[in-house]
Amino acid sequence: MQEIDLLIQPQWLIPVEPFGQVLEEHAMAVDQGKILEILPVDFAAQRYRAKQVRQLPGRAVLPGLINAHTHSAMSLMRGLADDLPLMTWLQEHIWPAEGTHVSAAYCADGVELACAEMIRGGTTTFNDMYFFGDQTAKVAQRLGMRAGIGLIVMDFPTVWAQNADEYLHKAVELHDSLRDQPLIHCCFAPHAPYTVSDAPLKKLRALANELELPVHMHVHETATEVAGSIEQHSQRPWQRLQGLNLPGPDFIAVHMTQLEDAEIQACADSGSHVVHCPESNLKLASGFCPVAKLLAAGINVALGTDGAASNNDLDMFGEMRTAALLAKGVSGDASALPAAQALQMATLNGARAMGIDQQTGSLVAGKSADFISVDLSGLNSQPLYHPISQLVYVSSRDQVQDAYVAGRELLRDGSLVNIDASALQEKVGRWQHKIKP
Amino acid sequence: MQEIDLLIQPQWLIPVEPFGQVLEEHAMAVDQGKILEILPVDFAAQRYRAKQVRQLPGRAVLPGLINAHTHSAMSLMRGLADDLPLMTWLQEHIWPAEGTHVSAAYCADGVELACAEMIRGGTTTFNDMYFFGDQTAKVAQRLGMRAGIGLIVMDFPTVWAQNADEYLHKAVELHDSLRDQPLIHCCFAPHAPYTVSDAPLKKLRALANELELPVHMHVHETATEVAGSIEQHSQRPWQRLQGLNLPGPDFIAVHMTQLEDAEIQACADSGSHVVHCPESNLKLASGFCPVAKLLAAGINVALGTDGAASNNDLDMFGEMRTAALLAKGVSGDASALPAAQALQMATLNGARAMGIDQQTGSLVAGKSADFISVDLSGLNSQPLYHPISQLVYVSSRDQVQDAYVAGRELLRDGSLVNIDASALQEKVGRWQHKIKP
Repeated sequence: MQEIDLLIQPQWLIPVEPFGQVLEEHAMAVDQGKILEILPVDFAAQRYRAKQVRQLPGRAVLPGLINAHTHSAMSLMRGLADDLPLMTWLQEHIWPAEGTHVSAAYCADGVELACAEMIRGGTTTFNDMYFFGDQTAKVAQRLGMRAGIGLIVMDFPTVWAQNADEYLHKAVELHDSLRDQPLIHCCFAPHAPYTVSDAPLKKLRALANELELPVHMHVHETATEVAGSIEQHSQRPWQRLQGLNLPGPDFIAVHMTQLEDAEIQACADSGSHVVHCPESNLKLASGFCPVAKLLAAGINVALGTDGAASNNDLDMFGEMRTAALLAKGVSGDASALPAAQALQMATLNGARAMGIDQQTGSLVAGKSADFISVDLSGLNSQPLYHPISQLVYVSSRDQVQDAYVAGRELLRDGSLVNIDASALQEKVGRWQHKIKP
Repeated sequence: MQEIDLLIQPQWLIPVEPFGQVLEEHAMAVDQGKILEILPVDFAAQRYRAKQVRQLPGRAVLPGLINAHTHSAMSLMRGLADDLPLMTWLQEHIWPAEGTHVSAAYCADGVELACAEMIRGGTTTFNDMYFFGDQTAKVAQRLGMRAGIGLIVMDFPTVWAQNADEYLHKAVELHDSLRDQPLIHCCFAPHAPYTVSDAPLKKLRALANELELPVHMHVHETATEVAGSIEQHSQRPWQRLQGLNLPGPDFIAVHMTQLEDAEIQACADSGSHVVHCPESNLKLASGFCPVAKLLAAGINVALGTDGAASNNDLDMFGEMRTAALLAKGVSGDASALPAAQALQMATLNGARAMGIDQQTGSLVAGKSADFISVDLSGLNSQPLYHPISQLVYVSSRDQVQDAYVAGRELLRDGSLVNIDASALQEKVGRWQHKIKP
């Protein structure tokens, strides 16, 4: 008998690898933060003596969800301005509010609120892009979440840096300071083709190669962006980025609406990853990402919520469902993006995009024990013919019961383990009063 | 001081009429199942002595949601077959399962499951279309829900009737038997243009006029339906229905994707109502209903979930959100279908479509006390700048705490009042085993 930390025995075990598999009467052995083995419960009883055994009848255990694109600190602007044309929203509401309020303290509190929301909703990893990545990393580490820290780069001055060179300098410095954090994964985050000029993008590409970091960027978000690029550079954004050697297996292109077939092929050929943010694209009327075509071309497509200011939540269950539904509507094919594929996009594909699929994204021996449980025993989940269908098409994030990252318990039976919700609520209340007195 | 049954004092009162209004420090007085008055809390304290006072801090009170199109008994086929082309789904899965299993007992249990789900999720009225409307009415009455009972009519034989004449006969008979039920509202429900021929539609129009009943029908659901009608009748479905005098202020056209601009104008001119079912249209890849255009033409647009076999839930919060997001994407205008309008579609517009807006759909003195409360105090609802935005873009149905129909309490602090959930779950389990052993 081997001594281990934890044995999980749910009603259903959905490892995501192999694709679409649903195991019953199986257990997952966890030790020292890693998945040791998935095996039939009777073998587990013979092989392992666990310090803790968790029987989870009525619950499905699956990999923690990966929110592959968000601006977590923006949760403090949730619902501040809705139902407005994109540029009115940005120029008259979001940017002025950011200009006035964004600071290290703002980001720390905003990220804590976002982490509380994400953990409660079954997200264990998020890929962030915002100012004060140092604060994002600090909060994520303290709360035990796995996080991609976007080392933001733009041309114009903000509270974080004055010019592209300073952004790049701070990016390298921040990456250096975070090298030893096991749950923190840095990547360069040039904001978008229309906010970063060629020179810093060239420097950034060289640095990304040298430091072996991914590059995370908004690309082809709107028709306006494409038209602007043609006017300014006589090239569509993707073409320009190709000229700058940005696309590649370490490139994470977010949004990708407004795509010509040749661009989809070029994206596939380059090995780049796409993060699809269906609810943000709908809410800002940015256009439809042709997900079924991207998948058919062999592109790795992950899912993200975008920031709460344009969603208005960080709910990956909602995002999976919207992605699965919308892909059918957009492609005109009711068999497009089936439930198991949506679940893979929200887990393993996110890990692949971030370059951390050796560590997370599926329940496979040797990977980090990043997993969640979802209660499927309630009336709203009945009848239950196919657990994965029920997860994607019927379940809400409120059904998430448990969340673990690297074997550490962050959510237990629906309650946050290490976040003081009432203290956090008070902090958020103070920011709300400042932002809109 | 006037003696009354109930005084409701929530943090926010959202009456839907006037449009977009959010009241604070207000109370709603309820007596004998009706709304007496909405007034400031201090006036209420002077004017009314209530048998029961409910202080609801942190909760918003709004009209109960109206699911304007569903097939509630189909909840027993939730998730039975997903991610399939429409005709494969219908011909190889749904119709064979219906042929084998649909009966009075099946419908009674399926409707009970649907009612439990709807009440728990804040829906107080549903407009149904299915076989065994007698069972639907019986269950709705027993559980205290307001229901539109679709008197179904088709050409082909089913377990309910053998031919169009028998359907019509049973329709009139059922309506007669339900005349005295205050929460039951009958309407004729010819299934769709492609399943009902001209002769029964003419008879039905005459009967509907005579009995003053609305007509509830699937119309222009898919491109295949339109093409089939052109082939068979040399007319598009709407045009054919016009020739049969179906459109009018008592006509409820469900789905309405695939519309030419002239058809939108004709629909508006006729005074017909449209029920938009965005999630079902997406999941079955039926096409996009041009909601922003319909609203601009002055058409009354309500919302429905369709049946759980094609959704896969009866969640009007999800439907409001999907409608508000999708309308922006489809119209290319981020200001299309703002939150307050989505809320109106899910409440008052549903009542208007069903012809019962004198009785329900908004919180106005004299109407029935059909209302719900939603908890907006949790972390996921923070910060809270605009309650209606938060209801539409952030809230899940799990936040619904209370539901009343005609002053009768159906949900109290998140618990179903008069449904035995474990007994229901056992019944549903038996059906699941029969349908997919």
